[in-house]
Amino acid sequence: MWKTPVLIVNFKLYKSGVGEKALELARILDKVSKERGVSIIAAVNTFDAYRIKNEVKIPVILQHADAVEFGAHTGRINVELAREYNLDGLLINHSERMLKISDIDFLIQKSKDLNMVSVVCANNSRVAGALAFLEPDFIAMEPPELIGGNVSVSTAKPEAIVETIEAVKSVRNIPVLVGAGIKNGKDVRKAIELGAEGVLVASGVVKAKDPEMALNDLIGGMM
Amino acid sequence: MWKTPVLIVNFKLYKSGVGEKALELARILDKVSKERGVSIIAAVNTFDAYRIKNEVKIPVILQHADAVEFGAHTGRINVELAREYNLDGLLINHSERMLKISDIDFLIQKSKDLNMVSVVCANNSRVAGALAFLEPDFIAMEPPELIGGNVSVSTAKPEAIVETIEAVKSVRNIPVLVGAGIKNGKDVRKAIELGAEGVLVASGVVKAKDPEMALNDLIGGMM
Amino acid sequence: MWKTPVLIVNFKLYKSGVGEKALELARILDKVSKERGVSIIAAVNTFDAYRIKNEVKIPVILQHADAVEFGAHTGRINVELAREYNLDGLLINHSERMLKISDIDFLIQKSKDLNMVSVVCANNSRVAGALAFLEPDFIAMEPPELIGGNVSVSTAKPEAIVETIEAVKSVRNIPVLVGAGIKNGKDVRKAIELGAEGVLVASGVVKAKDPEMALNDLIGGMM
Amino acid sequence: MWKTPVLIVNFKLYKSGVGEKALELARILDKVSKERGVSIIAAVNTFDAYRIKNEVKIPVILQHADAVEFGAHTGRINVELAREYNLDGLLINHSERMLKISDIDFLIQKSKDLNMVSVVCANNSRVAGALAFLEPDFIAMEPPELIGGNVSVSTAKPEAIVETIEAVKSVRNIPVLVGAGIKNGKDVRKAIELGAEGVLVASGVVKAKDPEMALNDLIGGMM
Repeated sequence: MWKTPVLIVNFKLYKSGVGEKALELARILDKVSKERGVSIIAAVNTFDAYRIKNEVKIPVILQHADAVEFGAHTGRINVELAREYNLDGLLINHSERMLKISDIDFLIQKSKDLNMVSVVCANNSRVAGALAFLEPDFIAMEPPELIGGNVSVSTAKPEAIVETIEAVKSVRNIPVLVGAGIKNGKDVRKAIELGAEGVLVASGVVKAKDPEMALNDLIGGMM
Repeated sequence: MWKTPVLIVNFKLYKSGVGEKALELARILDKVSKERGVSIIAAVNTFDAYRIKNEVKIPVILQHADAVEFGAHTGRINVELAREYNLDGLLINHSERMLKISDIDFLIQKSKDLNMVSVVCANNSRVAGALAFLEPDFIAMEPPELIGGNVSVSTAKPEAIVETIEAVKSVRNIPVLVGAGIKNGKDVRKAIELGAEGVLVASGVVKAKDPEMALNDLIGGMM
Repeated sequence: MWKTPVLIVNFKLYKSGVGEKALELARILDKVSKERGVSIIAAVNTFDAYRIKNEVKIPVILQHADAVEFGAHTGRINVELAREYNLDGLLINHSERMLKISDIDFLIQKSKDLNMVSVVCANNSRVAGALAFLEPDFIAMEPPELIGGNVSVSTAKPEAIVETIEAVKSVRNIPVLVGAGIKNGKDVRKAIELGAEGVLVASGVVKAKDPEMALNDLIGGMM
Repeated sequence: MWKTPVLIVNFKLYKSGVGEKALELARILDKVSKERGVSIIAAVNTFDAYRIKNEVKIPVILQHADAVEFGAHTGRINVELAREYNLDGLLINHSERMLKISDIDFLIQKSKDLNMVSVVCANNSRVAGALAFLEPDFIAMEPPELIGGNVSVSTAKPEAIVETIEAVKSVRNIPVLVGAGIKNGKDVRKAIELGAEGVLVASGVVKAKDPEMALNDLIGGMM
């Protein structure tokens, strides 16, 4: 469904990443992905997920799903329902939506059962190594203090990238993505030179004046 | 948009209350509401909300929204986005999705600002009275120990219904709904005789072999 | 056990508010309370509570208790146990430890049953009015954005103090305390002139170079 | 401080495991530990921890600590404070008090820094393997559905014990404890034959009519 390096764009709940604007942004991601031949994945909210999935070819994953089976739950959605709506996978344990480890395990296993992709976030190299044991499809390491900031993980913590890849690979051969503060192709190139097999971006694309230009710049660093 | 008594059907995350089946069920609610001239409200999950809203005339409310503004939130949806998708309102603080009081307050105020209906759940008469001060559109009292069971609140706790109505009315003139274990017209009639201005049902309709028959039976108790 | 106006000192988990230093601080509170004839209450962590209670005459309350009965709970303490250790009451729903409304209700009722004092925090006047219906012994309103800051609620939001007192008194005749950023006697005097029957302080005393001087200054504003 | 096999007794918040009764029980544990030459560890609530630690020789650990540094936290305690009170370690992520993985990591690292023992709970073999990467002193696997029940993990899920030990040992050489429903020496013997280096018990001792007899029976299975 994708080849590394991948670029995951987390739409978050930015005003420019929801509703009609989310649709527009997803179309841009779709176009750039096709033009450049690079795997771009959209991580979207539950409300927008179905409409976006119906409009684009790139993989669309949910920003979160609850670790529950069908039943007497109010205000929850689960992985089975995401599957019914043809979503491609899940972002799990993002720094802004951290989970109990038993729930992370539940969501990864459920994703496997339903043939969906799991991207699990970790706040440091130790946690990344631990989560590798659960065998998600991707591990994404993001130092929480850099998320949403102006200094990228590539610049501020190159050693954390190296340590995370070492930790993960010592447990399982799972591709490692990195994120936090990544805004341009230079940040991406650095991350990939250090061994990352992709990056997570959010504000750098979603809040960009010209998301298409921002994407093309980021992708420049992948090549 | 509705007149009392109202019947709120909480689809929960029952297998028969999500995806294609949620659409079918919503159409049945719509049909029965029109035929019988009774206000029926569908409380649905975020995934199904938009599709259901586009197919039916009855009010559609979300089972939950997060108490956040637009911004750097992952895996959250908010009231503004529900408004953009034309949802009619929110179920707030359901026993299976309880909230901090500051978040309940946030969600009620936000619903008012956006002209959406707020149905706030309370687990007893004291909490119902307290929440009345926040001026939601409806207060729904459900004793947690009876939710999903076979004995209705009308039968098991008629005094709790009376006390809740007294508590709420001593603070604000807000319609009180009751729920928990309500399965038939007799349960509904009893609740309304005690002063309730509507009921919440879930499994009694959503898991019924014949939801239309179940609805008609329930509505019989409203007339 | 106390007379208004009261001064509640929240020791938080400041390094200067735990362990041996908590004991010293509690002794200072005790001494100043006696000298000045003013009710001072220490709100302490569970670890230090018992030792402090055994050393001082002023009321000692817990910063938090869990809303559970005795039973199969790990890592929880409850109100009954606080009672067994002779604690005088509870701080409930502090901005740094917010609770579901059903748990707030549980803790207030349990405190009443066990003859303990309940001080319930609210983030604004609406929430304060709602919580008044649950009849705690005190309502303490603290605007979250001012907590720990250098501008006091008295200076930054005098109208919020007035509105809170109106809201609470419209529901029940419960004394209203205010807090957030209160550092000196002038802040206290202003709060009391506006109708508050006491204040909550934390860093202003606990992190003061000379807590005794800080207390005496604060108390000056009460007289 | 201890030698395997170890017996950890989780006092929980059982009426017979708190306050004066907790002290009595701890004395019994101390006596039996000495008499039988077996390592017994008491896992107690924060309120009782200090008094118990002052009365017994056996290691005393907390049932939970919050993953915070000293600072503006209300209703929290941390590992540093537990250290100041001479506690020996922490139970982390018990099924009744599950944590985010970033907090589990924080608590284990902090325990190491302060020379305290960390016992981390896991709900299955996969999670146990993952947590092994964080290098706690012990991993304790308890299938949640068996906790507090009458059928022991040794009887109901012997294969889960074997799988957990394999999973953990494939990552790090950390001793594995098991728990859930363990009531007698036969359950203990079976667990140890399968490779466990100790057991966690709660109701089997804390709610026993004669805790000393219960302990001696359990220890019989260790020899």
